[in-house]
Amino acid sequence: MNYLDNVKIVLVETSHTGNMGSAARAMKTMGLTHLCLVNPVIKPDSQSISLAAGASDIIKQAQIFSSLEEAIADCRLVIGTSARPRSLQWPNLTPKECGDKIIQEASNSDAKVALVFGRERVGLTNEELQKCHYHVGIPANPAYSSLNLAMSVQVLCYEIRMSMLNLSSVLTEPEADIDSIEFPKDEDIERFYQHLEQTLLKTEFINANHPGQIMGRLRRLFTRARIEQHELNILRGILTSVDKKL
Amino acid sequence: MNYLDNVKIVLVETSHTGNMGSAARAMKTMGLTHLCLVNPVIKPDSQSISLAAGASDIIKQAQIFSSLEEAIADCRLVIGTSARPRSLQWPNLTPKECGDKIIQEASNSDAKVALVFGRERVGLTNEELQKCHYHVGIPANPAYSSLNLAMSVQVLCYEIRMSMLNLSSVLTEPEADIDSIEFPKDEDIERFYQHLEQTLLKTEFINANHPGQIMGRLRRLFTRARIEQHELNILRGILTSVDKKL
Repeated sequence: MNYLDNVKIVLVETSHTGNMGSAARAMKTMGLTHLCLVNPVIKPDSQSISLAAGASDIIKQAQIFSSLEEAIADCRLVIGTSARPRSLQWPNLTPKECGDKIIQEASNSDAKVALVFGRERVGLTNEELQKCHYHVGIPANPAYSSLNLAMSVQVLCYEIRMSMLNLSSVLTEPEADIDSIEFPKDEDIERFYQHLEQTLLKTEFINANHPGQIMGRLRRLFTRARIEQHELNILRGILTSVDKKL
Repeated sequence: MNYLDNVKIVLVETSHTGNMGSAARAMKTMGLTHLCLVNPVIKPDSQSISLAAGASDIIKQAQIFSSLEEAIADCRLVIGTSARPRSLQWPNLTPKECGDKIIQEASNSDAKVALVFGRERVGLTNEELQKCHYHVGIPANPAYSSLNLAMSVQVLCYEIRMSMLNLSSVLTEPEADIDSIEFPKDEDIERFYQHLEQTLLKTEFINANHPGQIMGRLRRLFTRARIEQHELNILRGILTSVDKKL
């Protein structure tokens, strides 16, 4: 199978037709075909399709979502791009590490993986970045660090392709330990957060009128840990046991 | 000294204004500034300068030559880009090897190094390729291998920058922000685990007679995340809120 088929490139609120077409071309040169558009400011129209030149098939087949959550619902690994320095205290990857991790995950099974790019000017919001297990940044010239969207897509997709070529040429066995870990889908994790919030409202740890930062902080903690399936089962079991006693 | 100052990016007979500007931007994002134009079909005019956006200084300072030979006259290492398969039986480099070799050479002395890009449609001629010590190709999707000029400049300059950063090990500098995070003492974390276990016994999620692996698995989850102090406070608060309700 082609591992690259498991990799989604997600563009959030892209606002320029030319960027969409150039990103599609960049993807296709590296063998990636699965494009997801979240709330595109411009819809993939005939102009973006013609600007995509030989990669117009990528634009035509693109899936459109109204939120990042929907786009990554079936993904077990989500990596977000950020030009910002490591200010969020989040697990950060170099582009090469990002490529390796994506291919490692995509080669394990039919697990979907997402690499998420933000808006041309302002990137991803903090809230969006907090939905990602890892952040990746291209270590650019600090005096002129603004790679445009398509250039960033090109570099990161290049590293994904290099990792895939390394993997298939070396034919190394997948790392046994990582291989056997089952990670839940994003939608299952979202259900856990909803359950957690409901329970904390019942215990009155969260005040419905002043919920504050509690849920955001808990999400950050669990995202950082990258919950495994059996752990998610334990956490859901704990909540259910609390619910029953209340 | 900055090794990148020894590296020349040479564009041969570039024919589109936009490509020249985009190539200049790609160079600058990776910290490269020395652009050489061999017989440019379009001269670096006000339009190409404006398309270069923040990288117009690169275009303004570009040196113009009437032959490749003149452009590389002062270079000890010349690498030519080629999209063709390895048909010329010439020493071929991967992009990463190309970056390593360029930085190795550029860091040795004040030896100038050139990385040469060909015409948009037809690349470098055989004669030009034979003036190069090595050839480098980006291993693209065989079904759609046409990276445009600026994209190729971006990827290869990216690898040059990565090699430089590896050499100066800037990439391994400590994460600045990690210092500002407050992590709890181990004894406080142990108290949290004891509290958690007590609460789970009360909710009967853990059976006192058959505790099983639950606590071990939860410890593993939280250890992986490396709990921060404010998160530990939240988790203790949740347990207290459950205890009160029971």
